[in-house]
Amino acid sequence: MISPQPPTASARIYADDLQVGRRYELDQYTITEDELVAFASAWDPQDFHIDGDAARSGAFDGLIASGIHTLAIYQRLAVTKTFATWSVIAGRRLDDVRFLRPVRPDDTLTGTIDIVDVVLEPARGRGLVITDAELVNQYGDPVLRARVEAYVRTRP
Amino acid sequence: MISPQPPTASARIYADDLQVGRRYELDQYTITEDELVAFASAWDPQDFHIDGDAARSGAFDGLIASGIHTLAIYQRLAVTKTFATWSVIAGRRLDDVRFLRPVRPDDTLTGTIDIVDVVLEPARGRGLVITDAELVNQYGDPVLRARVEAYVRTRP
Repeated sequence: MISPQPPTASARIYADDLQVGRRYELDQYTITEDELVAFASAWDPQDFHIDGDAARSGAFDGLIASGIHTLAIYQRLAVTKTFATWSVIAGRRLDDVRFLRPVRPDDTLTGTIDIVDVVLEPARGRGLVITDAELVNQYGDPVLRARVEAYVRTRP
Repeated sequence: MISPQPPTASARIYADDLQVGRRYELDQYTITEDELVAFASAWDPQDFHIDGDAARSGAFDGLIASGIHTLAIYQRLAVTKTFATWSVIAGRRLDDVRFLRPVRPDDTLTGTIDIVDVVLEPARGRGLVITDAELVNQYGDPVLRARVEAYVRTRP
């Protein structure tokens, strides 16, 4: 599935360039109640994500974000800081994605990405880049952890 | 984190009621190019998700959906068919989420959910329900597989 065409000019970092142990610090993202409810209404319409009254009498004493929304926020922060400058082919796998604490309206999330392995497959023009992702809230408490695997082109 | 309040009236299926081996057939969902690009522009703005020209000269000969978008479509179909009628507390974990094939504009996805384990914790008022999820495209080819773990209330 690898194309012979070169990657775009903005994607200049190849799998060969990525160092195991490198850590990236993510920017911040604040989730509003409107966004939380809108996302969940479209993709995860369960009471505790979309109905404030039901949520207040539920397990979390208020609305909590969909885990898919939390993952989407992670991905947005990750693209800005890493993937947009890497010559990514595609994501392959997410493993052990843990929703550790509720994410609530007005929470501000940030986090880290650590490169934990790079498995080069130069004959296929690619490397499998494995990262550990963590998002924390404004109290420093982890809300999401995941292992993320993506194929990145090797240097032409 | 379990509330003493009862679940909402619409959520009448408890962890006790869920049978290992039960399969649910999901409805269908067709992804348009506009939605694919809009979702990725918000959450996963990589060239091969948002820039048709770049995507056509890339690894997949055209735009492909963000894996997070594919997961969101899965969740929407899953809520309709299962979670909306279960007394769900919250999702806990996604494991071994595999993006098996590209999802492209105008693809129609459907799939299945199989209950593979139910671990009751009656003293905590909950059970951990473990399901295997699969989405296939209109050719019957799998595009997504995942193991999904969620806490569901036990019968009061």
